[in-house]
Amino acid sequence: MNKPIIYHIPVCPFSQRVEILLQLKGLRDAVEFRVIDVTVPRPDWLLEKTGGTTVLPVLEDEQGRILKESLVILRYFEERFAQPLIARKDPYERGVERLMIAHAERFTDTGYTMVLNTDPARTPEFREKMLDHYRWLGVFLDRHNPGGLFLFDDFGLAEVVYTPLFMRFWFLDYYEGFDIPDTAEFARVRAWKAACEAHPAAQQVTFEQIVTLYYDYAIGAGNGALPEGRKLSSFVFEPDWRDRPLPPKDKYARIATDAELGLA
Amino acid sequence: MNKPIIYHIPVCPFSQRVEILLQLKGLRDAVEFRVIDVTVPRPDWLLEKTGGTTVLPVLEDEQGRILKESLVILRYFEERFAQPLIARKDPYERGVERLMIAHAERFTDTGYTMVLNTDPARTPEFREKMLDHYRWLGVFLDRHNPGGLFLFDDFGLAEVVYTPLFMRFWFLDYYEGFDIPDTAEFARVRAWKAACEAHPAAQQVTFEQIVTLYYDYAIGAGNGALPEGRKLSSFVFEPDWRDRPLPPKDKYARIATDAELGLA
Repeated sequence: MNKPIIYHIPVCPFSQRVEILLQLKGLRDAVEFRVIDVTVPRPDWLLEKTGGTTVLPVLEDEQGRILKESLVILRYFEERFAQPLIARKDPYERGVERLMIAHAERFTDTGYTMVLNTDPARTPEFREKMLDHYRWLGVFLDRHNPGGLFLFDDFGLAEVVYTPLFMRFWFLDYYEGFDIPDTAEFARVRAWKAACEAHPAAQQVTFEQIVTLYYDYAIGAGNGALPEGRKLSSFVFEPDWRDRPLPPKDKYARIATDAELGLA
Repeated sequence: MNKPIIYHIPVCPFSQRVEILLQLKGLRDAVEFRVIDVTVPRPDWLLEKTGGTTVLPVLEDEQGRILKESLVILRYFEERFAQPLIARKDPYERGVERLMIAHAERFTDTGYTMVLNTDPARTPEFREKMLDHYRWLGVFLDRHNPGGLFLFDDFGLAEVVYTPLFMRFWFLDYYEGFDIPDTAEFARVRAWKAACEAHPAAQQVTFEQIVTLYYDYAIGAGNGALPEGRKLSSFVFEPDWRDRPLPPKDKYARIATDAELGLA
């Protein structure tokens, strides 16, 4: 049967958003997900569909029409498969939800810039920026749902947007030793993050998968680029990440070899 | 009667979006607009409502609840007064509309940075960036509605978002001598822009009003800041902009005096 297709990079947080949304709607199989190998140039057939742009994820609907940008694709599925609605229904609450979602882009930028950074002198600055984001999120949650857990009564669209980022940022725990302080100031946002990560609809990826595949980001090489002295990207499909050891954590000291990463 | 209130700066493009939207819905009087004097510090009563943030516009609903960010406020009214719908109904078309709207932030940044620039050596660079935006918009229109005028069959949500920016950017025509070339490449976007500017629902501001009030932006002073040697901002309410002469165009040469601007 003809289905909408999402083309995406391996363990893409933006398509995980769609997977979580569909799971919440009981429609996990309504969309086909196809992984694009980012360790080689984009295939011509894909560039033809997108009119030349290389950004992923890309959505192709049953009529071959293309959409891009994660939040646009997410809203498309929310509106197309409207029942059950995951976004809030009340216009004011939708506004609050949108304000929180709008902050996710800056949160994403900081987290990815931090993991890609290779200058140890800059880590305190990134750590502070990340904590500022968590502080902002905590204050926002407290303001709009004082005493609660999620932004509203249950895991909703804001949580769909943030959860895959929390999971990608496991690479900050592992490679940067980053953690949110266990203090009263951060109690609310820590509880929220933990509830997001534990939600049954959001179990598409694991800690081991993220830190193994994203090793190259930790040493400064994003989007399938090849680090110095290496022949294979940590994003290759073969050997499967499950058959590789966890990469070394000392990102500021050295670049691990293909052999050490279980790639060759 | 109790109504939602929008607090905004004079001739704010973001609240003009809401005015256009309401006009299209035949609900112009459903919202009260209150202008905040940005030439003096924000009043305490306003900071109390917003929890300390000074960004405008701010929406206060009938229950005293606050929303901010232009596009969030716009969607709030679109959803609250849903009939007639101004956004597209079809999920794919809504996605296309969102992609175009998402570009507006970068377009806004470039236009405002260009008018605020006081280094004549940098104007060619800004001119190129603005043309890149118009090129992008033209290609987008052609791709999604080949041979048409608007993005879809009529003035819709994308046009609501862009029209107030086209009108603010009259300050680029006046102070920077900027114009979109009258060539085949730009024909589509020029026709679209002209149709947006001429639309009956979008006649809240005039060319004279924009170039008079925004004079201080043209000499590098945004948001009510006071330029060197001046006692009054071009954004003051008294004397009314209608009673002042058009400011001089030679922004790179000098800063006009209060007297010359009809302020004193």
